[in-house]
Amino acid sequence: MRTTVGIIGAGPAGLLLARLLRNAGIDSVVLESRDRAYVERRQRAGILEQGTADVLRAAGAGERMDREGLRHDGIELRFERERHRVDFPASTGGSSVLVYAQTEVCKDLIALQLKEGGPLLFGAEALAVEGALTDRPRIRFRREGHEGHDGDEGDDGHEDVLDCDYVVGCDGFRGVARKAVPAGLSHVFERTYPFGWLGILADVAPSHDELVYARHDRGFALLSMRSPAVSRLYLQVPEGTEAGEWADEEIWDELERRFETGDAWRLERGPVTSKSVTPMRSYVHEPMRYGRLFLAGDAAHIVPPTGAKGLNLAVGDVVTFARALTHLGDTGSAERLDAYSETCLRRVWQAERFSYDMTTLLHRAPGATAFDDRIQLARLRRVATSRAAETDLAEGYTGFPLE
Amino acid sequence: MRTTVGIIGAGPAGLLLARLLRNAGIDSVVLESRDRAYVERRQRAGILEQGTADVLRAAGAGERMDREGLRHDGIELRFERERHRVDFPASTGGSSVLVYAQTEVCKDLIALQLKEGGPLLFGAEALAVEGALTDRPRIRFRREGHEGHDGDEGDDGHEDVLDCDYVVGCDGFRGVARKAVPAGLSHVFERTYPFGWLGILADVAPSHDELVYARHDRGFALLSMRSPAVSRLYLQVPEGTEAGEWADEEIWDELERRFETGDAWRLERGPVTSKSVTPMRSYVHEPMRYGRLFLAGDAAHIVPPTGAKGLNLAVGDVVTFARALTHLGDTGSAERLDAYSETCLRRVWQAERFSYDMTTLLHRAPGATAFDDRIQLARLRRVATSRAAETDLAEGYTGFPLE
Repeated sequence: MRTTVGIIGAGPAGLLLARLLRNAGIDSVVLESRDRAYVERRQRAGILEQGTADVLRAAGAGERMDREGLRHDGIELRFERERHRVDFPASTGGSSVLVYAQTEVCKDLIALQLKEGGPLLFGAEALAVEGALTDRPRIRFRREGHEGHDGDEGDDGHEDVLDCDYVVGCDGFRGVARKAVPAGLSHVFERTYPFGWLGILADVAPSHDELVYARHDRGFALLSMRSPAVSRLYLQVPEGTEAGEWADEEIWDELERRFETGDAWRLERGPVTSKSVTPMRSYVHEPMRYGRLFLAGDAAHIVPPTGAKGLNLAVGDVVTFARALTHLGDTGSAERLDAYSETCLRRVWQAERFSYDMTTLLHRAPGATAFDDRIQLARLRRVATSRAAETDLAEGYTGFPLE
Repeated sequence: MRTTVGIIGAGPAGLLLARLLRNAGIDSVVLESRDRAYVERRQRAGILEQGTADVLRAAGAGERMDREGLRHDGIELRFERERHRVDFPASTGGSSVLVYAQTEVCKDLIALQLKEGGPLLFGAEALAVEGALTDRPRIRFRREGHEGHDGDEGDDGHEDVLDCDYVVGCDGFRGVARKAVPAGLSHVFERTYPFGWLGILADVAPSHDELVYARHDRGFALLSMRSPAVSRLYLQVPEGTEAGEWADEEIWDELERRFETGDAWRLERGPVTSKSVTPMRSYVHEPMRYGRLFLAGDAAHIVPPTGAKGLNLAVGDVVTFARALTHLGDTGSAERLDAYSETCLRRVWQAERFSYDMTTLLHRAPGATAFDDRIQLARLRRVATSRAAETDLAEGYTGFPLE
């Protein structure tokens, strides 16, 4: 097999890239190790930055998003029983975010790709990227037997090769693409956090119409939503906590404590339909380009979920790649393609900084001193009283400019 | 002896308070353990916030300050050989700072006090504050014999008592005033830093007309000034460093490395006239009021010198006290006096936050990871590219509003 751009991974980064390239008249093949049902079920983030929503719209993938997504013009910060709203459009000059789950973005992009796009192969597991420094990099991959094109049932699968002009690794933190960068050239920047998020989905209308980020002496809590009828709620829990350690009613009780206010606001409870723990990690791999191999999204960087930057960063990466490749086609200049890593990393590090700052602003670290607590409250108070500090946060939340 | 307000300490806080009270027609006595020459020699901070300069002017103590002080409309941030100017008036709507040494402020206030104000007793060492919960608190103090009013030379000094309506402890971090707050009611918030500042005074024109804050892999450096002919320069050094460990030329060599730029800028060297190490500490004592005892300035809080908040915070405290006491005289309401601690602490914690953030933004902590370095650079990059982030910093630097 042969294509211009070989894309590893059918998450939002890989799927959107295939769409952007198709719209620019560039052919691609997407290889995804899992099956379609699995990909369409994966629960992930749910906040689309202004720029991300704009990109999906411009790519012709915004129709259902605009119908079903919930536009949010702000978030609430809650601390010391007080409530402070950060107003996005007022402080950023018109930006907002959209609540629309990543899994829905994937469904929309898969449907479009299968209808209008190039090959999207499920059950095709990339094994290695080879020849990244040549003009013809290749992806070795294994196709599952029962979905293989030779139709042999019970087959263990067989190996195949995708020859490309460019390979883009959109295969996530545990993918193979990053491994093709020689160890001596790889620089890893990393931080882990001594806590995680216990998240639930509940069949109950959200108790507030915008997201609520609560800083409490007992730990952080987040009120989010998937739809007008489905709440998504999170509790900061110690590292290593298993979801099963918490009974549903214990979770509601703890959420109630951390969301306490000085007014009549109440947290509505409902049946919990899902319960899981998300670990927290910051990770960046530099560079994001090695010859004709380009890393995008979680394959190159991870952010803690506070501030919801993961999906949006992945979108930024593939937009940069698609624009750079189009620029090469239009002008013959590879300058932008060569600058891919630097261009992406500027945005990535701003998002890493933002995610780290939002995390430390709101979570209570084990061993935090009374001084640390006061500084944290002074920061929140600053956001609540200074238009400049509020704008700084709102700009970060609604998204850094795409390049 | 008896007065309305007994003031312990003739640093800038105590001296300015005496001046503000005198202007409001309220009598006070200032007790200072050292002699006048010592007080007028103490080298301390040199940056006056907009609001501090305004207060000194309004108090009739701004004449020489306005003649000799250097108005600064910005600072330079230097990192990765780049130079970024933070423009104060442009981002704050007109605020700036004044470079005028604390020791000069003290000289001006002492001269005014001796000419027009109430008693200012040098060599009068406060021993204890008593009766803070009564209507008549008192300061027990010892007067040095050779300066005592009985004139007995060779006397070891004798104890005296100052009866007051109010006592204000402006006696610094090691003073006695704070000790009058019962341990059970005192809450201390503290952070030390594993580094200090090696500072020099040099007889050479400053190499830049505004302060330069440099973040470098080798550590922080600061270029400041005392006058158009005297430079003040600092190097981050490990905790416990003695000034004598560094030869003058080693200091200049290291400053040159940390201030490196991509352009033709050069650091001018000159004779070093003073060399010392400043430790770094954050400290807050809550509450700042106990009955009729009020703590002001370093007696209640310490900030690391990054951002030059110490003197300005002290000014804020005594302004709040003077206004509250005047309010009581004008209206009969003690409400503002009762709220002294809460009012001051709002501003104190914003300054503590700002000083802590400026410190961590610019210093390299021992054990900092490559991730920490990247986050630090991303923060500096953010200030250099976002008007909101720049304004947030400029507002903090030029000062939080007085209440």
